Amino acid sequence: MSTAQAARAARVAPTAGPAGPQRSRRGIATVSLSGLLADKLEAAAAAGFDGVEIFDNDLVASPLSPREVARRCADLGLSIDLLQPLRDVEGLPAAEVAAAQRRTRRKLEVAVELGAPAILVCSSVRPDAIDDPDLSAAQLAALADLAADHGVVLAYEALAWGRHVHRVGQAWDVVRRADHPALTLAVDTFHLLSRGDDASSLAGIPGERIGFLQVADAPLLRMDVLEWSRHHRSFPGQGTLDVAGVVAAVLEAGYDGPVSLEVFSDVVREAPAAETAADAIRSLAYLDDEVARRRGRTPTTPPAPARVDPAFLELPADAGTEDVLRRLGFELVGWHRHKAVARWRRGEAEVLLNAAADRPALGLVTEPVARLAERARDLGRPAARVTRRDDDAALPGVVSPGGLAVFASAADGVDDWRRDFPAPEPSAAAGLRLDHLNLAVDPTRLGEEAAFLRTVLGLAAAPVEEFIDPHGRVLSRAFRPIDGSLRLVLNAVEVPEAVRARRPSGLSQIALACDDLRAEVVRLREAGLPLLAVPENYYRDLQARLDLDDALVEDLRAHGLLYDRIGAGELLHVFTPVLGSGIHLELLERRGGYDGYGAANTHVRLAAQATG
Amino acid sequence: MSTAQAARAARVAPTAGPAGPQRSRRGIATVSLSGLLADKLEAAAAAGFDGVEIFDNDLVASPLSPREVARRCADLGLSIDLLQPLRDVEGLPAAEVAAAQRRTRRKLEVAVELGAPAILVCSSVRPDAIDDPDLSAAQLAALADLAADHGVVLAYEALAWGRHVHRVGQAWDVVRRADHPALTLAVDTFHLLSRGDDASSLAGIPGERIGFLQVADAPLLRMDVLEWSRHHRSFPGQGTLDVAGVVAAVLEAGYDGPVSLEVFSDVVREAPAAETAADAIRSLAYLDDEVARRRGRTPTTPPAPARVDPAFLELPADAGTEDVLRRLGFELVGWHRHKAVARWRRGEAEVLLNAAADRPALGLVTEPVARLAERARDLGRPAARVTRRDDDAALPGVVSPGGLAVFASAADGVDDWRRDFPAPEPSAAAGLRLDHLNLAVDPTRLGEEAAFLRTVLGLAAAPVEEFIDPHGRVLSRAFRPIDGSLRLVLNAVEVPEAVRARRPSGLSQIALACDDLRAEVVRLREAGLPLLAVPENYYRDLQARLDLDDALVEDLRAHGLLYDRIGAGELLHVFTPVLGSGIHLELLERRGGYDGYGAANTHVRLAAQATG
Repeated sequence: MSTAQAARAARVAPTAGPAGPQRSRRGIATVSLSGLLADKLEAAAAAGFDGVEIFDNDLVASPLSPREVARRCADLGLSIDLLQPLRDVEGLPAAEVAAAQRRTRRKLEVAVELGAPAILVCSSVRPDAIDDPDLSAAQLAALADLAADHGVVLAYEALAWGRHVHRVGQAWDVVRRADHPALTLAVDTFHLLSRGDDASSLAGIPGERIGFLQVADAPLLRMDVLEWSRHHRSFPGQGTLDVAGVVAAVLEAGYDGPVSLEVFSDVVREAPAAETAADAIRSLAYLDDEVARRRGRTPTTPPAPARVDPAFLELPADAGTEDVLRRLGFELVGWHRHKAVARWRRGEAEVLLNAAADRPALGLVTEPVARLAERARDLGRPAARVTRRDDDAALPGVVSPGGLAVFASAADGVDDWRRDFPAPEPSAAAGLRLDHLNLAVDPTRLGEEAAFLRTVLGLAAAPVEEFIDPHGRVLSRAFRPIDGSLRLVLNAVEVPEAVRARRPSGLSQIALACDDLRAEVVRLREAGLPLLAVPENYYRDLQARLDLDDALVEDLRAHGLLYDRIGAGELLHVFTPVLGSGIHLELLERRGGYDGYGAANTHVRLAAQATG
Repeated sequence: MSTAQAARAARVAPTAGPAGPQRSRRGIATVSLSGLLADKLEAAAAAGFDGVEIFDNDLVASPLSPREVARRCADLGLSIDLLQPLRDVEGLPAAEVAAAQRRTRRKLEVAVELGAPAILVCSSVRPDAIDDPDLSAAQLAALADLAADHGVVLAYEALAWGRHVHRVGQAWDVVRRADHPALTLAVDTFHLLSRGDDASSLAGIPGERIGFLQVADAPLLRMDVLEWSRHHRSFPGQGTLDVAGVVAAVLEAGYDGPVSLEVFSDVVREAPAAETAADAIRSLAYLDDEVARRRGRTPTTPPAPARVDPAFLELPADAGTEDVLRRLGFELVGWHRHKAVARWRRGEAEVLLNAAADRPALGLVTEPVARLAERARDLGRPAARVTRRDDDAALPGVVSPGGLAVFASAADGVDDWRRDFPAPEPSAAAGLRLDHLNLAVDPTRLGEEAAFLRTVLGLAAAPVEEFIDPHGRVLSRAFRPIDGSLRLVLNAVEVPEAVRARRPSGLSQIALACDDLRAEVVRLREAGLPLLAVPENYYRDLQARLDLDDALVEDLRAHGLLYDRIGAGELLHVFTPVLGSGIHLELLERRGGYDGYGAANTHVRLAAQATG
């Protein structure tokens, strides 16, 4: 059994069993994977795809003949669902019709040898294309006659940048006028959604007239749609388009063909095909799940957690970390019953120092505790390893693509993590709370890590913010649950290779909230915890920017605090320099419902940390 | 004397001597350089700038007080020409006017301590800004009163994405209505040109009412103007905007302040400040030169070459290269009079194998021969080292940022390079011509290398084309002189680090033209030169794409040729695999005036070379 066959046998995330609902067949376009055609097919099969779309440039550059490609796919257990694309064959002046038919015949011959049941036809982009749906319909119908002779179906797609036909309704209008069984509509979620259409644009289109469904997500970007499409598509769950809504509508209409990923992006082009394919199949598992919910069906995947709160932060135990916790006013309140894990606490903030851990982990309160790991498994994410005795709290966990282990605890009862730490000492110090954690990720992995937080944990993503760093820039995105107090921030740090070495990926910031930051800072200074110095210029600029009261600014200056204001909310905060392991601390006080992260001050911190 | 002072003393590219025309003072905004404020000032001084604009975020994050910054600048010989920016202080509802005045006063105090004579005021971007030029004029006039009290001038700029005021004519209208000596117009070439305005938009504006001139170029990109501005500005000569036209108009109007670079881009943010500053000062030398020509003045810099043709290609001598030349039908026709340089020739194609060279160089026919190197020197580019005897041809040369040495030869006479190779043997083989060379550059250096070709050699740049590579993508840009047959192509290869090692920067392709490629290929196969195999699928696709005559395709297939067609022009071409030193050969035949580079086939070559 080949690697690919073995992987298929043990396919990740099967959402349909003998008794489960029928799931759509999963496809991927070869253009969505890097490498040469043979590598792409191998990667698609290994990840567990059912079929592929063959992109003509991949075939043209391959030494494999169409029949050899067909055999290779059969050996790998892949169907060839589509050959794509055929360009500029409608809206033509009469003099060019015969040539288009000859060109189509050539493509049909290749499709037959591939065993591809369909060819994608893109709406014309020729500057001289004729704007006449009846003419396009007639020209396509003539090509459909040829296709029918070859046992192939044409699927006509409105390219978002088509000369005249650029919306799905226009393409359907042409298909409807042609009224030919071998001419169908192709639906591509990117082309449809990027033009501002949505699922309602498909109302009334019978599912059997939809010949192919391509799916891609994308972040919302204000740029030319062709550039957007070529460089910034992403897998479902990584962007912000309502892909699930369109797919649900297409399936509701009765379409029963493959759901096929067509994603090209600058990230995917440079990523190894195997990694991309694994990411891609996970995105389809997530999409299946979302689509089932949209259709009012019961998905086989458990739902994302309803409510998520932080339970504890686990850090590798070392003397330096202990020292920092002590200066922060944390107290050692107990030990795990049978592991070398110390429980430190101050108020609601719980930190575990684990002598056996080599990287940070995060405990969450989310119930039922089993659900998170089950959902993660169904979405193709590995479980976190836990060594536990039968009478320990369950703490099932999952590992993010960037390597953060996340464990689920109950709020009380047998699966409350605190049960494993008997007889805690009461803590005297006034309270701290874990406010948020920042995770540094490689810029090329931002989409994947964001997809994990959104799809597995069910967190909602804020828009990407950009900060200027002395050596590059930081793209930052905050995540929160629909309900609950967890806050995570992903930071993609774009700096030269030489600087990157000093900015490891993983946990980079631990932000703790308190009720009186001024008092806290006085105490921290006494305890000898170093805080980043705030330049005097900063306070002068605060007044130039925000027209603040002199007394307030004097007080901020005296305590060395940073300040931000959004509406009626105010944030006071301070940072430490970068401590061991590339992590720094933030202490903050939110006033009046301040809900942000002090973005206005990020450049000051980045500059101070670059010197410190 | 500090490094910076020494560099200033030996400043690159002085275009004004005691007898020369007065040049504008050269400035740069601190936001155009990476690092912390102190690093930026040092880099600007070392590159030879006269002054700086202080960007508020740089000052705010700096531990240096405004007075300390002023002293630091004075020590470095830099003036502080501007503090920027003051935001959202006009178009305000009445309730906010007093706060804006207080905010402005704070900024004025900082400007006074810096010794900055001016503050940049951006047009309002508040969603609730009021669209009333008289109101904006009155509010700005009140602020100008405050400014005048501090001995400071306000320079009002139309941000391209301002809420109401986003074109230079609108900003001038507001300034004119305010009619206040301390309120002037700021002109920014990017903001002006990105909105589709040009130099004519400045007609009638008196130079003394222009308080500041910021310059930036940019490539033409179809994207949101704010994103374009933040990520893709470039130095003059690196983009495609008519920066010189606007600057010439501003100077003609009588403006006598600094010409100051405000360039932010993703490239600049990650580049070392010293490199960027050196690049920046070169761009201003070029801009001075261009502006002088636009104003009908005699620039001190010699003009770019009028006509440029390839003379020879010099390669490091080694047995492998000799072998390839021999198989190509080149013949050894002579030796340099006193150097270990062999002259190989076939027809017009001349290749020198230099035993003392460690990298390729290019000889050009361009006259007068001294001019190229003189122009390069004035534009801050280093001369190429040549070891020559007094009676050798002069061959003055210059080195591109990427390291390609380029030498200038006369077409005949004492400075004809061929004079140093006595008594050449006549070559029997039918002719080849050097058609073009491809140079691979790091993607972050594409702008700099392009600027060299455009500004020093005076070449015209074609638009950037994108090609998909199995491991990433290639951005490609072709360059040609206004007159003459030189063709150079820059390829920025975006691939992962691991792949990059196999794709060194520098000369990557040597393309030779012939008159009968089919005969040539038969001969090459006999001579045992390996050619890239063209997949059979390629020929089938040619017919599906171009509806070619069967006989033509059969002939192409039989000879293993690639084919392209643009209008009436046709290209036949073949490639070798990558030979030693990361270089491959192309042989091509241009028919019917074909003027391109076979872009339609690039993906086939890239795929074949990725396997080979």
